[in-house]
Amino acid sequence: MTPTIGLDVGGTKVLGALVDPAGGILAEHRVPSPDGWDALAGAMLDLIGTLREADVSAVGIGAAGMVDHDGVIHYAPNIPGFRNVAVRATIADATGLSVVVDNDANAAAWGEVVHGAARGARDALVITLGTGIGGGIIADGGVYRGAHGFAAEIGHFTVDSDGPVCACGARGHWEAMASGTALGRMGRDAAAAGAAPSVLREAGGDPAAVNSHHVGEAVLAGEPDAVALLERYADYVAMGLAALCNILDPGVIVVSGGLVALGEALLAPVRRSLVSYIEGGTLRPVPDVVLATLGERAGVIGAAALARELTR
Amino acid sequence: MTPTIGLDVGGTKVLGALVDPAGGILAEHRVPSPDGWDALAGAMLDLIGTLREADVSAVGIGAAGMVDHDGVIHYAPNIPGFRNVAVRATIADATGLSVVVDNDANAAAWGEVVHGAARGARDALVITLGTGIGGGIIADGGVYRGAHGFAAEIGHFTVDSDGPVCACGARGHWEAMASGTALGRMGRDAAAAGAAPSVLREAGGDPAAVNSHHVGEAVLAGEPDAVALLERYADYVAMGLAALCNILDPGVIVVSGGLVALGEALLAPVRRSLVSYIEGGTLRPVPDVVLATLGERAGVIGAAALARELTR
Repeated sequence: MTPTIGLDVGGTKVLGALVDPAGGILAEHRVPSPDGWDALAGAMLDLIGTLREADVSAVGIGAAGMVDHDGVIHYAPNIPGFRNVAVRATIADATGLSVVVDNDANAAAWGEVVHGAARGARDALVITLGTGIGGGIIADGGVYRGAHGFAAEIGHFTVDSDGPVCACGARGHWEAMASGTALGRMGRDAAAAGAAPSVLREAGGDPAAVNSHHVGEAVLAGEPDAVALLERYADYVAMGLAALCNILDPGVIVVSGGLVALGEALLAPVRRSLVSYIEGGTLRPVPDVVLATLGERAGVIGAAALARELTR
Repeated sequence: MTPTIGLDVGGTKVLGALVDPAGGILAEHRVPSPDGWDALAGAMLDLIGTLREADVSAVGIGAAGMVDHDGVIHYAPNIPGFRNVAVRATIADATGLSVVVDNDANAAAWGEVVHGAARGARDALVITLGTGIGGGIIADGGVYRGAHGFAAEIGHFTVDSDGPVCACGARGHWEAMASGTALGRMGRDAAAAGAAPSVLREAGGDPAAVNSHHVGEAVLAGEPDAVALLERYADYVAMGLAALCNILDPGVIVVSGGLVALGEALLAPVRRSLVSYIEGGTLRPVPDVVLATLGERAGVIGAAALARELTR
C-alpha cells in the first residue's frame, strides 16, 4: 500500500503529513491558519502540493468543525472560514485525489485506534482534555458519525445545572467542569482561597495567573495540595466518562491532550471514580482508561488512515 | 420467510408472540414472571412450546437486564432470577432453535425501526418514559450494543448534581428528572404546594395520591396548570435528549411509554426545548421527535425481528 496525506485543520494552524501505511510520518509541514475560506483552501492545497508524491491517491482531512457525510462543514466555532463550505468537493476537484473529511477529534480517535493506544479496538471512546473536551466514538470497528455526521460532541451534556457556564453558553456542561481549562479555573480558585500553596508558587505567587500547567507541575512534584486538587478534577472527568460508558459501553477509553503528561497521577483517580459512577460498576466489565500515544500528531495520522480506507 | 417467536421478559410478566415477517402478531400469550431462574426458564420454554409452529426456526428474547453478546444476563435490577445466567444457550439447547437475546429496550427499539415509528431509519434513538427511562440506540442500521452488550443505559447520566436520587442510587440522573415517575413526583409537589388544582382534582383531592396519570388526564382536559407542569417536565426530557443528540446524532427520536397518550401536548414543548439545548441547534439538522406506534408490543415484535436476522 502507498502513503496517504493527512491534514489537521485547526483554528491556529494547519498541519499536514505524508503518512505510510504503518502510521509512520514520512514528511510533515505546518502553516498558520489564514482567515477566510478561500485562503484556507489555498493553504490546504499548498500543503497537499508540497507533500504529494507520485503514488499518493488519497487525502484525509480532520477539521475542527461540524462536518457532514458529504464533507461539507456546516460551522466551526473557532474557524470563521468554515461556514457551509464544501471542503471535500473543493479539495477533490482541485487535486484529482480521493478526499475524505471528518471532524478533527474523530480523525484523532481513528488514529489512536489504528496506530495508537487502542490499536485493534472495535468499540472505543477517545477523549481530549484541552481548552474544551473533544471526542471520537469508535463503534463496531469504525468512526461513529451519526445520522448527519455530527456525533461525538461529547463535552456538551449537563452535569451540574448550577455549574459554570460552558463555551457553548449552557450551564454546567461536562466540558465546563472537566476540560483542561476547568482544571485551571479550579487551580485559580484554590490558590485564591489559600488552599493550593504549591500551585500558587508554580504561578509565581499570582493566583490570577494559575493555569492547568501550574497544577500539573505541582502534581508532578508530588505536592499534596495539588494532588488533592487533581483528584477532585479527576472525579468530574470520571462522572462524564461514566455517563458515556452507560450510553456507549466502550471497550477502552483513551485520554489525550496536554494532561497526558500527568500519567497515572491522573488516570488512577479517574479509574477509581469511574467504577463507582458507572451503572452496575461492580457487576459488569468496566473499560480500562489508558493514555493516548500519538500526541499532537493523532489528527494527521488518523486523517491519513481515513484516507487509506478510500484506497482499499 | 417464516414466522419467528418473540419473548419480552420483564419483572412482572413474560409476553410471547408468534410474529410474521411483516411484524404482524399471529398468536400471543402472557404469564406472570415466576421467581428464580429455573422457574423463569421453564415459563419461557412453555411459552415457546405453545407458540411454536412447524416452520419456526428462531426465537428472539428481550429481557429487562444487562445482556452480553453471548446472551448471558449479568444482572437485572428487577428480576432476581437473572444473575449470571446463560439465557441464550439454555433456551437454544432445550429447543434446538436459533436464539438471540438482547436487552428489552434494545428489542423494542429495533421493533420501532423495523415495523414502527422509525421504519427504515439507519440512526435512531428510541426512549421509553416509564418507571425509569429505557432506551435503544440504532446505529448504522443495527442495534448498537457496545463492547460488552451493555450500551444504551441512557437514563443514567447526571443532569443535576443537586437533583433527586435515582433508582440506581446516584443523584440527579436524567431518569430521576424525566421518567414518568418523575412527572408524578412533580405533580405531587405542585399539588401539595397548591400550584396544580386540576391535577389535585384528578387525584381525588389527595396530593400524596397524585401520579403521572393524573397529570396526563388534566393535560388532556386542557387545564392550564397541568399544561404548565407538563411543559416544565418536557424541558427536562429535552435536556437529556439534547445530550444524547450531541453524543449520538440520531436521525429521528422515538418516544414510547404511557405518556405517548399525551401526543403533541408532550412532543411540541420537547421539540421546542430540544432545539435550544442541542449544540449549534440553529446551525444543523435537529432530529424530529415522534411517537412510538407499537405500544407495549414493541418488545415482542422487535425480539421476533431480531430472531428473523438469524434466519437470513
